[in-house]
Amino acid sequence: MDEINVAFLGAGRMGMTHLRNLVGIPGVRVRVVADTNLDSAQQGAALVRADRASNDIAATIGAADVDAVLIATSTGTHAELIEACVRAGKPVWCEKPVALTLVETRRVVDTVEAAGVPVMIGFMRRFDPGYAAAKQKIESGDIGRVERFRAVSGDLAPPSLAFIKTSGGMFVDFFVHDLDLARFLVGEIEEVNAWGSVLIDPGFVDAGDVDTAVAMLRFRDGALGVLEGSRRSTWGYDIRTEVAGSRAKLVIEAPRKTPLLTMQDLGVTEDHYESFPDRFHEAYHAELEFFFASLRAGTPPAPGVRDALETLRVALAAAKSMAEGRPVKVDEIQ
Amino acid sequence: MDEINVAFLGAGRMGMTHLRNLVGIPGVRVRVVADTNLDSAQQGAALVRADRASNDIAATIGAADVDAVLIATSTGTHAELIEACVRAGKPVWCEKPVALTLVETRRVVDTVEAAGVPVMIGFMRRFDPGYAAAKQKIESGDIGRVERFRAVSGDLAPPSLAFIKTSGGMFVDFFVHDLDLARFLVGEIEEVNAWGSVLIDPGFVDAGDVDTAVAMLRFRDGALGVLEGSRRSTWGYDIRTEVAGSRAKLVIEAPRKTPLLTMQDLGVTEDHYESFPDRFHEAYHAELEFFFASLRAGTPPAPGVRDALETLRVALAAAKSMAEGRPVKVDEIQ
Amino acid sequence: MDEINVAFLGAGRMGMTHLRNLVGIPGVRVRVVADTNLDSAQQGAALVRADRASNDIAATIGAADVDAVLIATSTGTHAELIEACVRAGKPVWCEKPVALTLVETRRVVDTVEAAGVPVMIGFMRRFDPGYAAAKQKIESGDIGRVERFRAVSGDLAPPSLAFIKTSGGMFVDFFVHDLDLARFLVGEIEEVNAWGSVLIDPGFVDAGDVDTAVAMLRFRDGALGVLEGSRRSTWGYDIRTEVAGSRAKLVIEAPRKTPLLTMQDLGVTEDHYESFPDRFHEAYHAELEFFFASLRAGTPPAPGVRDALETLRVALAAAKSMAEGRPVKVDEIQ
Amino acid sequence: MDEINVAFLGAGRMGMTHLRNLVGIPGVRVRVVADTNLDSAQQGAALVRADRASNDIAATIGAADVDAVLIATSTGTHAELIEACVRAGKPVWCEKPVALTLVETRRVVDTVEAAGVPVMIGFMRRFDPGYAAAKQKIESGDIGRVERFRAVSGDLAPPSLAFIKTSGGMFVDFFVHDLDLARFLVGEIEEVNAWGSVLIDPGFVDAGDVDTAVAMLRFRDGALGVLEGSRRSTWGYDIRTEVAGSRAKLVIEAPRKTPLLTMQDLGVTEDHYESFPDRFHEAYHAELEFFFASLRAGTPPAPGVRDALETLRVALAAAKSMAEGRPVKVDEIQ
Repeated sequence: MDEINVAFLGAGRMGMTHLRNLVGIPGVRVRVVADTNLDSAQQGAALVRADRASNDIAATIGAADVDAVLIATSTGTHAELIEACVRAGKPVWCEKPVALTLVETRRVVDTVEAAGVPVMIGFMRRFDPGYAAAKQKIESGDIGRVERFRAVSGDLAPPSLAFIKTSGGMFVDFFVHDLDLARFLVGEIEEVNAWGSVLIDPGFVDAGDVDTAVAMLRFRDGALGVLEGSRRSTWGYDIRTEVAGSRAKLVIEAPRKTPLLTMQDLGVTEDHYESFPDRFHEAYHAELEFFFASLRAGTPPAPGVRDALETLRVALAAAKSMAEGRPVKVDEIQ
Repeated sequence: MDEINVAFLGAGRMGMTHLRNLVGIPGVRVRVVADTNLDSAQQGAALVRADRASNDIAATIGAADVDAVLIATSTGTHAELIEACVRAGKPVWCEKPVALTLVETRRVVDTVEAAGVPVMIGFMRRFDPGYAAAKQKIESGDIGRVERFRAVSGDLAPPSLAFIKTSGGMFVDFFVHDLDLARFLVGEIEEVNAWGSVLIDPGFVDAGDVDTAVAMLRFRDGALGVLEGSRRSTWGYDIRTEVAGSRAKLVIEAPRKTPLLTMQDLGVTEDHYESFPDRFHEAYHAELEFFFASLRAGTPPAPGVRDALETLRVALAAAKSMAEGRPVKVDEIQ
Repeated sequence: MDEINVAFLGAGRMGMTHLRNLVGIPGVRVRVVADTNLDSAQQGAALVRADRASNDIAATIGAADVDAVLIATSTGTHAELIEACVRAGKPVWCEKPVALTLVETRRVVDTVEAAGVPVMIGFMRRFDPGYAAAKQKIESGDIGRVERFRAVSGDLAPPSLAFIKTSGGMFVDFFVHDLDLARFLVGEIEEVNAWGSVLIDPGFVDAGDVDTAVAMLRFRDGALGVLEGSRRSTWGYDIRTEVAGSRAKLVIEAPRKTPLLTMQDLGVTEDHYESFPDRFHEAYHAELEFFFASLRAGTPPAPGVRDALETLRVALAAAKSMAEGRPVKVDEIQ
Repeated sequence: MDEINVAFLGAGRMGMTHLRNLVGIPGVRVRVVADTNLDSAQQGAALVRADRASNDIAATIGAADVDAVLIATSTGTHAELIEACVRAGKPVWCEKPVALTLVETRRVVDTVEAAGVPVMIGFMRRFDPGYAAAKQKIESGDIGRVERFRAVSGDLAPPSLAFIKTSGGMFVDFFVHDLDLARFLVGEIEEVNAWGSVLIDPGFVDAGDVDTAVAMLRFRDGALGVLEGSRRSTWGYDIRTEVAGSRAKLVIEAPRKTPLLTMQDLGVTEDHYESFPDRFHEAYHAELEFFFASLRAGTPPAPGVRDALETLRVALAAAKSMAEGRPVKVDEIQ
């Protein structure tokens, strides 16, 4: 496979970000950008000088000049599109999540594993230089036995209540990245205990969700963890993860966004990230590089659909724990 | 009350630290240092140029030239000594804890409150410049409504298993400071959920304790919190607290111990605290200053024995939660 | 000017970096990549899907489908290429420096100013988010009157002595960015005082240069500054700038490169930048974006050739000061 | 020498600070506090429970029960008092400076060296944990050959012009600590080049002084340094020192004063030191501990009067350089 010819599905805001990243990757050529909105497709195609734009997604997937498909369409379409691709024998990179339900996710896993076609899911935080370096240190044994995990997440402002209603809820939608990191950095989770609260907006109650939550994680090997987060952290996009081992502790937290310190009024101030494209800029680029490097090397790109499934089970266990006020074993979620 | 004449009980290692701090406080005079070991008492007395040393603690409390008593004796003696002092009408500052059991602590609270004599308990972290400034910011409304709390604690190395057996356990002994800070910074706790694990030393199992634990806190006003800690954090004395509100987030964590950064091998390194006298040096001094300032002002010194009682109830609720594998309301602990 | 058609000259290592950055800029199309080495030109053209590659640089500049020219060829060719472009009426972005001599630089300034064609010189640090934010704060009056400037620069390892011999020397080659920042952030420099030393490699003596140097700057408005640097800072690419005013002080220094802190052995370690493409990644991208935005807006892109000339005069004054052991006014350099 | 009996001269503001620090040092007993103002002497004596207060300084020095003398009187009295003490055979610790003139300082050095009595001068920054650790790293060879030195100093607000007139000037009064650190950390200075400016208050011109200054230092072994400072840094007490070597670079700068970070409005803020008693709290304590430890060990306490002399020579060379607009060799100052 000399040059990899790519179809890109979904030219929305994140799609454009991914397209821009694609351009810098040598040996990758975007043949077609497809979107149900032809205008968007054309804008995306123009951005990367693709051969063509299309609003026929099915035809795009099947096109003879397409070696691999990248999916950045809306969440509800992921499962079907992944399945269509693997049936067509086309390797896939798809934005997370695969699906919001266990049944649908499991069906995709079965389809993908039966087809044996490489599929990678966009848990981009794994590719942030901080998390990637942490993973390496943990795997190399540098921090000894992993004993504790901690994650905090906060978005500058909550999404609309309309979105909340279809989001899958605080654990499936919001904490999914933290749970994926917990599994990535520490290992499989055996049991979850979660509490939630509505502190920001009473509308969350009507939406059947919470806006603030905490959880405890018990990993299979005995390590313990905590999770904490809010749909609104007015001071910035607040993502911080810690992994403590018998020999060292790793803290993954972005330093100031801009290399400027202001000393004034007996204080020193630095600025802070606002949102995920901002904070995880490099990670978005690195994950696509890794996807294509895996295709070239013939090694399975990770994280794949099974990772998405396992992380979803933990998220659903947390949601169940919160709903029922008791610890829930991940094995209850089948 | 012009000069305050003080009796100091217990000239052990921490006692000597407190004695050293006492010297710098204007208007306070140590009349007598008492210890069951007369040698120790004499060393303490020499250090601060006290009038006399004694191994008769009862006589010391009752002495006519003693206005107030400071207690730094072993944990098991605190309750009785506090009671003896208040019966003698002498204001008391006593190292935490009051006692390890609810019954005994409650008895002391009753005695103290009946006597109406000022008693302060040494939860020194409240007097650290970081925690004190955080408290002020929270009280002033600067961070808005408090929504989340987070604490992590780690000691460089675990104490002996002999100590563990009589310590009161991970929550009553180790997390008591974090729980006190939770109450101090956020407010009263309604419910606790805790998990523990033995990861460092199997001897903890025999001692009926854990060496690693996590917990969730639900505050009465709806705020949520997490707690996480280990008896062994080999990288240093690792104390970090966060309070997130609707408008701002406070992080209380000591910066590098020494004002030296070393840049070498593509890295920058700073040093880290080793232990509590090291990290909370200023707090130990400030709490004694506050005690005497309160006596002079005629205002009740805080935290008092009721704070000790309320924090103990939360710790016991956490221990019960861990033991029974279910959330426990603090009101269950009576 | 709807789409800007670009010729890119010089497909070496930095050229490839610039080409990669070009791709992400909307409305810019690389028509041709030219290099005296046709292979390099073809690799560059392939990277950005340019229409063609060429080893005929003169023809490339004159090509009818070329609206603007970007120059990343070797230093010795900059002056002539800029002149050729402006004579052809083509706006230019060119890597610094314009030339190493005053005569040649002045000639280019004359040519460019006579032609009235926009020319921008690649002092990319001005576009780093830190320096750009500092400039804005200074211009807005936030820090009050600027009183002091400080810059330190260090490269991980010195270049070859062969390069040193033709480099223009420590001030013209190495400190030129710091001097440009001094002028950018504070204003014009009246007088310089410089000292140098050979501490790393005696070969610098034979090359007629120094490897370590310091300087004092006196700005026209009375502000004072210091400069300090070494050809070898083994701990990383060490660039730090400070501007102190009557109301605040700005420190521009990159935080840790990777968002990972490692706590181990009573210390906390973070990593550090290695080199300029690493540290100024965003600046390289932003300067090109600014160049094209200026062309579209019809405003002169800055810094231009006159900035290059003024900065060169300061650098030559510093070199003269070092050589003659006395303070040198910039006006001596004509 | 079992217990060291001390006379303390000068119970002003700094005197009281030193007295407070004295109390915590075991084996040291303040017999008498003397001040020309008897009230002050009595307050100081009360603070440390000294045997007596006195306004007869000569008698105090000569008292039979005094083993060593600590001098914190006004600058103009230091030289004579040191000489009186050494003539009486009493070891001395004295606040810096010895004197503001070379003649007087040299006379004291001669007297002290002839008498062979231990005298220590209070350049307390050497005892700050950061500077002390830096010294150790440099001496151990950890940073390789020292190549560059950098210091910045800033006071929150300038002193009164009345003080400025008798202060000795910007280099002798203000930069003396930085120059002492340069000698302490790097070694002897061969040549100085200095510039000054009046930017804060025109009154400095009348006082024959400057309020803002920079300097270059050439060390005897070839290392180079820069100095920069202002009588007014409104953002805080701004002391920062860097020592770069062939293998590593050390940065000595105090982290945030209070262990509190406030995250708000897309920014993170920490607080900053205000003044020297604040920033160098520990250093003031450690220098006195070192003085008494030296007396006990029979080793000469450092820095001594010769250090004060050598640092003064550098300061005078800088002042001369600024006045004459040329580099000045320290050997010119005899």
